[in-house]
Amino acid sequence: MVGTAATIDLADRRREADQPHSLTVRFGMSNPLRLDAGVDFAPMQIAYQTYGTLNPERSNAILVCHALTGDQHVVNTHPVTGKPGWWETMVGPGRPIDTERYFVICANVVGGCMGSSGPASTNPATGMPWGLDFPVITVRDMVRAQAMLLDHLGIESLFAVTGGSMGGMQVLQWAASYPQRVFAALPIAGATRHSAQNIAFHEVGRQAVMADPDWRAGRYFAEGTNPRRGLAVARMAAHITYLSDAALHRKFGRRFQDRDNPTFSFDADFQVESYLRHQGITFVERFDANSYLYLTRAMDYFDLAADYEGVVANAFRGAPTRFCVISFTSDWLFPTAESRAIVHALNAAGARVSFAEITTDKGHDAFLLDEPELFAIVRGFLDGAAKARGLRGSR
Amino acid sequence: MVGTAATIDLADRRREADQPHSLTVRFGMSNPLRLDAGVDFAPMQIAYQTYGTLNPERSNAILVCHALTGDQHVVNTHPVTGKPGWWETMVGPGRPIDTERYFVICANVVGGCMGSSGPASTNPATGMPWGLDFPVITVRDMVRAQAMLLDHLGIESLFAVTGGSMGGMQVLQWAASYPQRVFAALPIAGATRHSAQNIAFHEVGRQAVMADPDWRAGRYFAEGTNPRRGLAVARMAAHITYLSDAALHRKFGRRFQDRDNPTFSFDADFQVESYLRHQGITFVERFDANSYLYLTRAMDYFDLAADYEGVVANAFRGAPTRFCVISFTSDWLFPTAESRAIVHALNAAGARVSFAEITTDKGHDAFLLDEPELFAIVRGFLDGAAKARGLRGSR
Repeated sequence: MVGTAATIDLADRRREADQPHSLTVRFGMSNPLRLDAGVDFAPMQIAYQTYGTLNPERSNAILVCHALTGDQHVVNTHPVTGKPGWWETMVGPGRPIDTERYFVICANVVGGCMGSSGPASTNPATGMPWGLDFPVITVRDMVRAQAMLLDHLGIESLFAVTGGSMGGMQVLQWAASYPQRVFAALPIAGATRHSAQNIAFHEVGRQAVMADPDWRAGRYFAEGTNPRRGLAVARMAAHITYLSDAALHRKFGRRFQDRDNPTFSFDADFQVESYLRHQGITFVERFDANSYLYLTRAMDYFDLAADYEGVVANAFRGAPTRFCVISFTSDWLFPTAESRAIVHALNAAGARVSFAEITTDKGHDAFLLDEPELFAIVRGFLDGAAKARGLRGSR
Repeated sequence: MVGTAATIDLADRRREADQPHSLTVRFGMSNPLRLDAGVDFAPMQIAYQTYGTLNPERSNAILVCHALTGDQHVVNTHPVTGKPGWWETMVGPGRPIDTERYFVICANVVGGCMGSSGPASTNPATGMPWGLDFPVITVRDMVRAQAMLLDHLGIESLFAVTGGSMGGMQVLQWAASYPQRVFAALPIAGATRHSAQNIAFHEVGRQAVMADPDWRAGRYFAEGTNPRRGLAVARMAAHITYLSDAALHRKFGRRFQDRDNPTFSFDADFQVESYLRHQGITFVERFDANSYLYLTRAMDYFDLAADYEGVVANAFRGAPTRFCVISFTSDWLFPTAESRAIVHALNAAGARVSFAEITTDKGHDAFLLDEPELFAIVRGFLDGAAKARGLRGSR
């Protein structure tokens, strides 16, 4: 652990970006990552974690794709925050994604800040962090980089690929870009394109970061500053969208924090204010502000149909992949209608698809939380797919 | 007009706060405004506009209550921005709130920045703007100040009081605090209390303002700075909540701004980004950052039931007022369920109430927009009420 939340500083962050507490693979100049922006990016580093054991047939690998502010630390103690992995409820021995059966891989996305090449990584040309000189990346670029990692690991075909939110976007892109490499796909709380409202919320977050004078046009590492106030505001705004009105009401309502009456001041009178401020402060300790800009941008640019003559179904025609699409009723960031659109496109493409809309008041973040119905659906779908793939130990 | 949007500076803003382009009334030390915060506030200035003519019986007055960032300039050219009034569609000769029949009054709320006492007004004790030394105010305080204005104008009983959003809160408070002075009440897109999610969004806005180093703990007038970046971010976040996912999709979708393809940069590639940035920039030119803090706080504190043993209905027991409650299907800031709760409380109190849920995709801001159904309902309700009150010219 490089530090506690209170003591993590920019030097720690830089170190984690270049020399992470993870497995890494570095692709040299001869094997560049071809980016949608038209750049051949090299050298390129991918940081990743694996859990469980790859079977001799190399047929039991599940790629987990993380969300906007997630990372590769799915079920291990996080090296920076010291907290548990972000999907301990879903992945592990005996869990729905059972590491006693499956070989689980999760890579930090390109543009991230936990060891894969991103704006906090060192630009070899200058010896300083890339900052805004890092090329703008897309969800497709993230997936291309993951494919290079799989090549490196000698995994030709994934048993399954899954993830929520931005992870769900990657799942769809995987199935579209590499249909022969994906036996089963589980996009959770995803969408085939980012909506205008979601772009708007992301733009607010970016403007909050950029409005912070400590951002220094992205050169805060060089100048020894840290745009923590702007990034905290961005996180606070985003965090509201991850929950639901009902969940906020249930958790906090209008209850006061440590008092019975209003203070008639701008203190955090209400519990929900105190909670949000905490979310902002803790996020800043673990995340890079420029990475936040790049990854929100990648999500904004995501529009699967745009690459297929405006028709999503064309992305999946002839795909051998079996799909399980999952959404949550109270998710207003990636509403159920977005998942229905995925299902309709898959149906139109003649793909094999099942769909589950889970009733919950927990909002978008439900995919990270204790949702027994979600676990049962994932477990059941993977069991069936494992049987179809002839994985040993299939029930 | 004190300047165009581009040239308004802090000196103009201060002048408008103290010596507005409006009618004003000043209440001296002998007639303080008793605030919920426990302060007797004096001297206190109220800036207001009137339209139409008060009849000899003084029985045709309609009080319009403005929303968070509105002001008293309902249907006249705004003295600061040069733009039309904010409710030209609703108020005026031949409009639903017909200034040929009714005498319309609108006052800048206490805590505002357009001429009623607020944080941008001069503190007589120091000769400088109040800033954060201004007392925290509530919706009830706003209404008390309006009642003092009506006393000054010699209007014992209002024919009607109406307003949307924060204006709707004031309408409900009017009916609760001064039932004998309100013949008819039309709360539009309102609520009896601010929800946890809404408090959360407001807190993000306040934190954005306070994160701006130019805010200077509220003393930006004295220090010659202007927290425009923070306030613009606050406005951008809030503005999303005034619209709807569907409205944003219809207006902007994923269309690019002045280009056909993404720039792979952090420019405002999408029209919705460009639009939001514009909203932020223009807002900063006309609104005071500290006022934004005070008025959002007042909304957060609003909880009508809290003053009535936790039972909203108790606020309206025995009220002679006739109510018309209006909500919009796509409003997710003040959802229809909030208006239904108002109606249920009024029913429980035995009050006379009609309710209209208007189908629209325009979101919360629908009350400011061209909504023929809204106009028809307001016109019809006022016609009936005018007849019941025996107003001359009633049809």
